[in-house]
Amino acid sequence: MKFGVIGSGSWATALVKMLTDHGQSVNWWVRSPETIEYIQRRRHNPHYLASAYFDVQQLQMREDVNAVIAASDVVVLVVPSAYICDVMDQVDSELLKGKKVLSAIKGLVPGPDLLLNDYLQQRFDFPLQDYFTLLGPCHAEEVASEKLSYLTFSGVDMEMAAQIAAAFKTPYINTIINNDILGVQYAAVLKNIYALGAGMAHGLEYGDNFLSVYIANSADEMASFLRTVGAEHIVVGEHHTDPITQQRDLNYAASVYLGDLLVTCYSPYSRNRTFGNMIGKGYTVQSAQLEMNMVAEGYNAAKCMFNINKAIGADMPIASTIYRILWERVRPKKGFAEIEKVMN
Amino acid sequence: MKFGVIGSGSWATALVKMLTDHGQSVNWWVRSPETIEYIQRRRHNPHYLASAYFDVQQLQMREDVNAVIAASDVVVLVVPSAYICDVMDQVDSELLKGKKVLSAIKGLVPGPDLLLNDYLQQRFDFPLQDYFTLLGPCHAEEVASEKLSYLTFSGVDMEMAAQIAAAFKTPYINTIINNDILGVQYAAVLKNIYALGAGMAHGLEYGDNFLSVYIANSADEMASFLRTVGAEHIVVGEHHTDPITQQRDLNYAASVYLGDLLVTCYSPYSRNRTFGNMIGKGYTVQSAQLEMNMVAEGYNAAKCMFNINKAIGADMPIASTIYRILWERVRPKKGFAEIEKVMN
Repeated sequence: MKFGVIGSGSWATALVKMLTDHGQSVNWWVRSPETIEYIQRRRHNPHYLASAYFDVQQLQMREDVNAVIAASDVVVLVVPSAYICDVMDQVDSELLKGKKVLSAIKGLVPGPDLLLNDYLQQRFDFPLQDYFTLLGPCHAEEVASEKLSYLTFSGVDMEMAAQIAAAFKTPYINTIINNDILGVQYAAVLKNIYALGAGMAHGLEYGDNFLSVYIANSADEMASFLRTVGAEHIVVGEHHTDPITQQRDLNYAASVYLGDLLVTCYSPYSRNRTFGNMIGKGYTVQSAQLEMNMVAEGYNAAKCMFNINKAIGADMPIASTIYRILWERVRPKKGFAEIEKVMN
Repeated sequence: MKFGVIGSGSWATALVKMLTDHGQSVNWWVRSPETIEYIQRRRHNPHYLASAYFDVQQLQMREDVNAVIAASDVVVLVVPSAYICDVMDQVDSELLKGKKVLSAIKGLVPGPDLLLNDYLQQRFDFPLQDYFTLLGPCHAEEVASEKLSYLTFSGVDMEMAAQIAAAFKTPYINTIINNDILGVQYAAVLKNIYALGAGMAHGLEYGDNFLSVYIANSADEMASFLRTVGAEHIVVGEHHTDPITQQRDLNYAASVYLGDLLVTCYSPYSRNRTFGNMIGKGYTVQSAQLEMNMVAEGYNAAKCMFNINKAIGADMPIASTIYRILWERVRPKKGFAEIEKVMN
């Protein structure tokens, strides 16, 4: 199985490290010839995760995304969700036929606000059967320093998911397989919203006692949403049951759900938490964005999930209050006074 | 309802603050006349939680534990679990008749290794119907600074639990009622074991990615134990079903379960975490205890729960590995290599 990695940020670089450390040769889309030349000479990415070194003999770097896809069996998509449409617009749809797509994207496709599998299906008629995700609590920095991490590979085709996962296994990566292909993606989006809220709580000067109650209740709310989604495959505006993903007895305390929520909420480096902290302290959304010079993923995610949940109808008082603070100018203090009442 | 607080450490002092802030008058067992005189004059406990001030007109402090019990309807037990037998040996069993006991003790009664309700039943024939607990993620320091915290009051008599809880309600304390009187106590014991393990993981130089997976899997293991206990009231060595506590659909992501686990595992100040960290770094149990000049609660708890679980038979690979590291000289690195394999 030949892997093609589409993306060259820090998470993409971490994945290239895993694959090459496992002995896999990798086709890697790197847009700039200077960067390709640098990596070949210096054995590491100068721009991202510079402390990760590769055996460059295993790397086939190319400037052309279609050349990477053509040469690969498994196309690993790992660009920020904000840019995925730009990248996919360059892709020759014929080349995708018969390939497997492995998504490492932690977010919805902006604009249509879809899970990537739904976007690929609509745009390329790409079958869910060939779609897989790679998610879990895994800061790229800890991959660079080879601290043991757990990654979950999901797909409706669990056998193929296991084969793909095997290529990422190294002494510092343990792999887990499940078939909750929709749930794991929603969990990755929701965790950013709850982490943003954890930042707000911090900015509002709640203490550690409250934070633990907030995160526990967020975990419960996430599980309640995922149980609802698990039974029905829902695309915004449409409703169609998908028996393959019917699972009511999933373990939502596993690493890809609760683990990822914990690492994101408790990390002081999380952009969502930093952004939320500023909102909690009284900054407007605009001035927090100006100050940080970036958009925290949880900000758009809060709106998307609010809309998606209109169709799903899960009870989500925490996430919807965070949405109303960010998008409907509810004062953080007032919003959290409501959250206080629903927690147990 | 008159409350008598048995104990004068930091958690007892925090509870006296809540009760008096709510406007309740409190009988308080304070053993030294000098301390009583100091508190009357200076309005705070000189030895513990000195930043919490009271309206002393609401306090009736006495040196005699039986005088406090005689004057109270609800006896709040809040001494370290290591000393509870010494205290109860001084108590006139006739005086306990008809009283309610509210336990704020986060541990098993040492020696017989029983939940406090089982110990009181055996020693004083005290009925479970009159027994309540007050538990949840709540550092006393945050009570002193009036940061919002959540406390869960449990009892088979939920109406009485609600009446008792009402006396602790203040702007900084939200109260929750449940009837899982065994589960909440076991959760309070188990969290110390898992926090000790979190310290070990830190000492072994695992990173944040691993820690989040470890804590998520600990939460799952705790829930699995509690589901088993929830269906059967089990005293060590005996087995008898107790239909009152039969609950299979409890929310184990609530504050008194997952919330308390999170605040204990993530707190860098936790004694259990500090102790575990030293074990992970290679100290023996004896030298870690000497160095810390105290025993971490999770150390004895690991052994007790290992024995208790022989009767219950829940699947607890994490807790039992921590037991074997602490009590059977399994090397931490070897133990955690086993824990790595069972997590998902």
